[in-house]
Amino acid sequence: MSLYSETFYADAVNRMFSDTQSIAYLLQVEAALAQAQADLGIIPKEAAAVITASCKVDFIDANKLKEEVVLGGNVAIPLVQQLTKVIKNVDFEASKYVHYGATSQDIIDTATVLAIKDYMSWLEGKLTALESALVALTKEHKHTLMIGRTLLQQAKPITFGLKTAGWLRSVSYAKNRLQKLTSGLFKIQLGGAVGSGNAGITTSVQEKCAEILGLSPAFPWQADRSSLVDFASALGVLSGSLGKIAKDISLMMQTEIAEAYEGAAEGKGGSSTMPHKRNPVTCALILSNSTRTPGLVSTMLSAMVQEHERSAGYWHAEWETLTQLMGLTAGSLEKSVDLIQNLEVQPEHMLRNIEMTGGLIYAEKVSLHLSKSIGRMQAHEAVKKACKTALAEKRHLKEVVQEAFPDIADLEALFQPENAIGHSVEWVEEILKKYSS
Amino acid sequence: MSLYSETFYADAVNRMFSDTQSIAYLLQVEAALAQAQADLGIIPKEAAAVITASCKVDFIDANKLKEEVVLGGNVAIPLVQQLTKVIKNVDFEASKYVHYGATSQDIIDTATVLAIKDYMSWLEGKLTALESALVALTKEHKHTLMIGRTLLQQAKPITFGLKTAGWLRSVSYAKNRLQKLTSGLFKIQLGGAVGSGNAGITTSVQEKCAEILGLSPAFPWQADRSSLVDFASALGVLSGSLGKIAKDISLMMQTEIAEAYEGAAEGKGGSSTMPHKRNPVTCALILSNSTRTPGLVSTMLSAMVQEHERSAGYWHAEWETLTQLMGLTAGSLEKSVDLIQNLEVQPEHMLRNIEMTGGLIYAEKVSLHLSKSIGRMQAHEAVKKACKTALAEKRHLKEVVQEAFPDIADLEALFQPENAIGHSVEWVEEILKKYSS
Amino acid sequence: MSLYSETFYADAVNRMFSDTQSIAYLLQVEAALAQAQADLGIIPKEAAAVITASCKVDFIDANKLKEEVVLGGNVAIPLVQQLTKVIKNVDFEASKYVHYGATSQDIIDTATVLAIKDYMSWLEGKLTALESALVALTKEHKHTLMIGRTLLQQAKPITFGLKTAGWLRSVSYAKNRLQKLTSGLFKIQLGGAVGSGNAGITTSVQEKCAEILGLSPAFPWQADRSSLVDFASALGVLSGSLGKIAKDISLMMQTEIAEAYEGAAEGKGGSSTMPHKRNPVTCALILSNSTRTPGLVSTMLSAMVQEHERSAGYWHAEWETLTQLMGLTAGSLEKSVDLIQNLEVQPEHMLRNIEMTGGLIYAEKVSLHLSKSIGRMQAHEAVKKACKTALAEKRHLKEVVQEAFPDIADLEALFQPENAIGHSVEWVEEILKKYSS
Amino acid sequence: MSLYSETFYADAVNRMFSDTQSIAYLLQVEAALAQAQADLGIIPKEAAAVITASCKVDFIDANKLKEEVVLGGNVAIPLVQQLTKVIKNVDFEASKYVHYGATSQDIIDTATVLAIKDYMSWLEGKLTALESALVALTKEHKHTLMIGRTLLQQAKPITFGLKTAGWLRSVSYAKNRLQKLTSGLFKIQLGGAVGSGNAGITTSVQEKCAEILGLSPAFPWQADRSSLVDFASALGVLSGSLGKIAKDISLMMQTEIAEAYEGAAEGKGGSSTMPHKRNPVTCALILSNSTRTPGLVSTMLSAMVQEHERSAGYWHAEWETLTQLMGLTAGSLEKSVDLIQNLEVQPEHMLRNIEMTGGLIYAEKVSLHLSKSIGRMQAHEAVKKACKTALAEKRHLKEVVQEAFPDIADLEALFQPENAIGHSVEWVEEILKKYSS
Repeated sequence: MSLYSETFYADAVNRMFSDTQSIAYLLQVEAALAQAQADLGIIPKEAAAVITASCKVDFIDANKLKEEVVLGGNVAIPLVQQLTKVIKNVDFEASKYVHYGATSQDIIDTATVLAIKDYMSWLEGKLTALESALVALTKEHKHTLMIGRTLLQQAKPITFGLKTAGWLRSVSYAKNRLQKLTSGLFKIQLGGAVGSGNAGITTSVQEKCAEILGLSPAFPWQADRSSLVDFASALGVLSGSLGKIAKDISLMMQTEIAEAYEGAAEGKGGSSTMPHKRNPVTCALILSNSTRTPGLVSTMLSAMVQEHERSAGYWHAEWETLTQLMGLTAGSLEKSVDLIQNLEVQPEHMLRNIEMTGGLIYAEKVSLHLSKSIGRMQAHEAVKKACKTALAEKRHLKEVVQEAFPDIADLEALFQPENAIGHSVEWVEEILKKYSS
Repeated sequence: MSLYSETFYADAVNRMFSDTQSIAYLLQVEAALAQAQADLGIIPKEAAAVITASCKVDFIDANKLKEEVVLGGNVAIPLVQQLTKVIKNVDFEASKYVHYGATSQDIIDTATVLAIKDYMSWLEGKLTALESALVALTKEHKHTLMIGRTLLQQAKPITFGLKTAGWLRSVSYAKNRLQKLTSGLFKIQLGGAVGSGNAGITTSVQEKCAEILGLSPAFPWQADRSSLVDFASALGVLSGSLGKIAKDISLMMQTEIAEAYEGAAEGKGGSSTMPHKRNPVTCALILSNSTRTPGLVSTMLSAMVQEHERSAGYWHAEWETLTQLMGLTAGSLEKSVDLIQNLEVQPEHMLRNIEMTGGLIYAEKVSLHLSKSIGRMQAHEAVKKACKTALAEKRHLKEVVQEAFPDIADLEALFQPENAIGHSVEWVEEILKKYSS
Repeated sequence: MSLYSETFYADAVNRMFSDTQSIAYLLQVEAALAQAQADLGIIPKEAAAVITASCKVDFIDANKLKEEVVLGGNVAIPLVQQLTKVIKNVDFEASKYVHYGATSQDIIDTATVLAIKDYMSWLEGKLTALESALVALTKEHKHTLMIGRTLLQQAKPITFGLKTAGWLRSVSYAKNRLQKLTSGLFKIQLGGAVGSGNAGITTSVQEKCAEILGLSPAFPWQADRSSLVDFASALGVLSGSLGKIAKDISLMMQTEIAEAYEGAAEGKGGSSTMPHKRNPVTCALILSNSTRTPGLVSTMLSAMVQEHERSAGYWHAEWETLTQLMGLTAGSLEKSVDLIQNLEVQPEHMLRNIEMTGGLIYAEKVSLHLSKSIGRMQAHEAVKKACKTALAEKRHLKEVVQEAFPDIADLEALFQPENAIGHSVEWVEEILKKYSS
Repeated sequence: MSLYSETFYADAVNRMFSDTQSIAYLLQVEAALAQAQADLGIIPKEAAAVITASCKVDFIDANKLKEEVVLGGNVAIPLVQQLTKVIKNVDFEASKYVHYGATSQDIIDTATVLAIKDYMSWLEGKLTALESALVALTKEHKHTLMIGRTLLQQAKPITFGLKTAGWLRSVSYAKNRLQKLTSGLFKIQLGGAVGSGNAGITTSVQEKCAEILGLSPAFPWQADRSSLVDFASALGVLSGSLGKIAKDISLMMQTEIAEAYEGAAEGKGGSSTMPHKRNPVTCALILSNSTRTPGLVSTMLSAMVQEHERSAGYWHAEWETLTQLMGLTAGSLEKSVDLIQNLEVQPEHMLRNIEMTGGLIYAEKVSLHLSKSIGRMQAHEAVKKACKTALAEKRHLKEVVQEAFPDIADLEALFQPENAIGHSVEWVEEILKKYSS
């Protein structure tokens, strides 16, 4: 588990899930709760001051905490115990007001939302960087000719910009989707033992506490995991889209195709004994992540059927699953920014590959052209025959066609890839308009 | 597969995925394409008229179609062949313009979107019906007392309305989420062989064709499945939320708990040899579906890494998966409407269950109350002792407390469940405000 | 759902899951139960004779059955009702002994096992055919040179036989695994309402009934789904292995690589407008299936946590899931047999691709060779430099090396692929020994 | 990720996946390879001695290693670099023979197998302990009466021993399944760059190296993951079976049912503010794990379609997935041993619950009994009516029946649960025979 902590993930996000930071989020919620209750006159202001001052990661013994989780079944129970002990030593009276009226899930769910908020802020920055990198790549290769491929077969020419514009749009879709989630996602969970509130947990406390934490107030959602699972699935879609980009690039990096390479870094992807290799290492890691994220989203969905006011098991199943999903998606995103920013495109190899079928990719174009002079059926038959000849004699289709129709007009133009790319350039320009500012 | 075609699904939705209707959607796209191209002067108006007139399900041999799919690997190839043959018999010239410039995926993806649109219209109706049923149930049981349960253990009293308000909010979340998808989801796919367009597939054709079909125009998205998978995951979340409701009800239906029952229909859920049984048959089917949908969403996510301009396998993996996911979610929703509309609530059993612990659920309340007079620590210890006595001697806590503190004030009130439900009523009223109109 | 009923599946297996055959399996269990009970003197022989004679698919109204499933929640309830009615009309007394002592799950689970048994018999035939086809292919290409690829990059030469021997071994693994399951899988489920037996369901009845059905006797396993889920996961592994083969072939079919093709059938995989295409249609369908099976196995595993003596939902989740998993795996297997039997291998293209790096794939070999004369470090540096020169000047490494070391011995041999394939041939021969008979 | 490192997992297994131990397994393979090659005269004995002596975890900088993994994409690359550097400082000549002829995957896959072997040894011990605990529990409760439940409804009486015998058999199934895997699973992976062997990697080296490591020799399986995924799915089945046990117990622990409790440990599962709670904490953690394992198995299956001789991403997807699956299953198993060993069974509550329906659970029995004297149809109708009366008037069925049939014989016996448990005791005794020794 551990040797790969930096391989599939992103450092900045790993830090958000460190022991220290996880505890810090939990303590932040306890402190905010005390402050809110003090502001509203529910607990003494002095107690809240002591509690807030005591909500420091340094006061918590993380190793002891981990050991104790197993007894109560969640991390809030031993945390509140340790915290209460710390406060008791300072101010016995204040210790009565720790975690006042709250339940473990209030603290844990709200802490998770705080972590998600920090995560999303990081993620949006990276998504913007990836969009920018893709916009730049698309602009640069608006006219770069390459073969379009369907079912892994050469089909017809496109531009590389058309392909990258598709990547760009999938990234923007994910970004837009995630941004729309925020208002419904960044919300407090505060309901007490069974989500019905109590003297310590009132609508006003929810509002004040949410305000302190920079979240929205909300009715308790302890057994309705919709927003969390919705968020998980949005990450799953992003991870899938990044996987698609990595898949395309890894296929383009194939030795026989060689249309693009991951940027070379010292010691990266190469092999001293196999000097011709340019391993798609970054792509492989992104693809590894996109292979793993669907199962994690599936777990989050499976865990939705939470019994009554708090589940015996399904809630618990979310904890590491969500963290891992966030971590892997972040890893994929950070790697994708690097991948796109440093992509080494090989336009000359793209051109070479377009020529690989000896003109057969233009057969339909030739047929349409001929049909104007000799009729559709005749043209179709003639070109079909020419293709067979070209394949059998390993000759270029242009040559065979010229032999059969010596007087054919514009033959050269028919076999130029730039005339076979449809609206690639125009459509890319349209798409790019949305990103100019 | 087949004996259960009506068990887990919804009839109306099954019809949308029938052979006939599936072919009808495909033909609708072919017809719209021809019309759009004729309107724009790309193909002769006469040809379009003949094509449109020929795009009738009756002209297609569905069995032959099914057999032929396996050769080309998708249903559009043999469909276009059959359609072309039909038209050739009527008007040879017109047959040249069938499927003009289009690729199989254009037709299949757009037909899928048409099916989704019909589906969503049906789904929204059912979601509204479920919301209404839940609003009515919540209103009715705003004050109905029951025990709240966490980790399957009795915790503290709530109202049944608070529980159903949570169900209601999860359904509204799903509805809202699905509604927001529509603009980005109901869009045409029209790009030609590699998604770059051609003489027959232009921006204007996309716009016109979309207009005819009641969809939005769109750049080709043949290898970017974001919107489709996003839709799939929204269904997954809905199915999960319905599963949670069914889980709660099936637990409440347990013989020992008996707080609610599925509506009895003639021959439903009962057993002639076991007259006491009230099997949660509808719940079981909804739970079955929510057990299956996560795996289907996971498949949709796994299939996102589609190679280049059209995938060799991943696109194909979507077809039945999406249909099944839509079918199961529809089945769950239709069953949930029935479940909620006909739920037989047993308030007297709810009250009985509240009493089951002999007052122990009020221990904290008693402790807080006593602390005002004898101090917090003393109160805590005294109540702890009283609880032990009550458990050991199987007596009601109220009695034990009264014995220990004969002068205690308001003892009765402390042990009344309506005083222990926190803000249940107030919060439910707040939630219901959003649904009044 | 339906247009693809022949695309992803196998006809013979579809028939095992038809309405008619599904009902037939259920009736077969009811008949066997009556016979066993009559043989043991538990019910009258005459009754059993009438019941057996009435257990005919023709007597059952399948459409009515499907409609009624939803009421009781499983297919056995309405089936027993219809069957009882049929028998009542013939012999009222006999009708009392229909389904005597049994519960729905007894009939459904045992019928499922009967279907699995037929399925496994079909599957083993196909697995043997696939093994044979792979043995023949491996023998034929024991010496056929091709490039080995890691991370989609050319690495070092192997033989095609070494690759196919790997495919062969994965198929044999799956076959062996499935065969080992049979004794624990082909067992009767017969336990009555709660799996404790009763006057009609005794150890002797279990034994006799199992004998009649060709199954093993067994203690009731109604809530222990181990053997069924184990079977499901074995199918998942088989589907994955077939996916790997299809993945390799689809990559080898890439236009730029062209090392193998799916057999051409009339109208298969080709494109009239794109004559150069050889779409990997069969591979795509197999890959589609291997993308879908993991989610289905996951559902079977999720459904294991069945409550008490019969689950409310999880049991139900198995029904269509298992059927679909069996169907898709069968489809993949049948298609794989066709794929391997008709594979068109292109040894000359394999050789061409080996040459693509201009000798760089032999760099390590040259370095080892030189180290004998000039020392390891010097050799390493010299070859590294030569590789750079070769790449920069687009020259063959052999030429560059010869220039640098004009006296080098055996230069030609160093650059011959047959000298670079390690123990490919020897190992393939060893593997094939296990299949000779 | 980290705060829960001890919550869901097992300490002993966590240690097998620690940084230190992970590196130790890798070094063990490198050392064994060198020894094997030296034994066979392929590399100098002196070099092997130095290499072996240098294969010490202390010589490796784990943090540096983790950082470097991302460059080459796997942990073997930087490990071999660090190891080579260490050895160069000691004996330059020996350093030439580190990792001789091997590829990264050889080392990583074989190290994984070594970890699995240690894991399996631990697992078998725990499985045996769980079997013993279940045998003891079953023996103890062979005659303990409780109600059997289907679809969460009371059905008919069974014994608790019958239920636990079912648990026992599922655990034995998993144990047996895992044991059968070992010979095909504990095998070396050693094939060189593309799995074809070379001067350093021969059949003899495979055999010798396997012998040193206590594994079976094997042809390279670098792209055939059958045995690994098979192992993963066996763990998934075990985790599911443990989830089923935990599910049953958590349901039995419900406040209203109270038939069994997790053993109480200081501070475990209780609540100071809710003294009546006995939270199923251990069950919740096991259920959490069984909710997560299906998605992980699904990922392993999805990752099977590995391209050519080494995958770009799918291989990588296995690493953490398998480790996590092993860890979670181990956690569930260890917790299950504790759960069963310390289960507090409440036979009196079981008896109480049997009585809850006022005798309705015996209706069928009464009907059968009466049919002997008054005929089947009459008996059925009479009992149906009696049940209605009993329900409506909240009276015990026995009383109602006695009123209607004052002369009925053996009435008391009809309503005694020990007469309604079928073959529960006999079957349990049969099952237990297999475990006596």
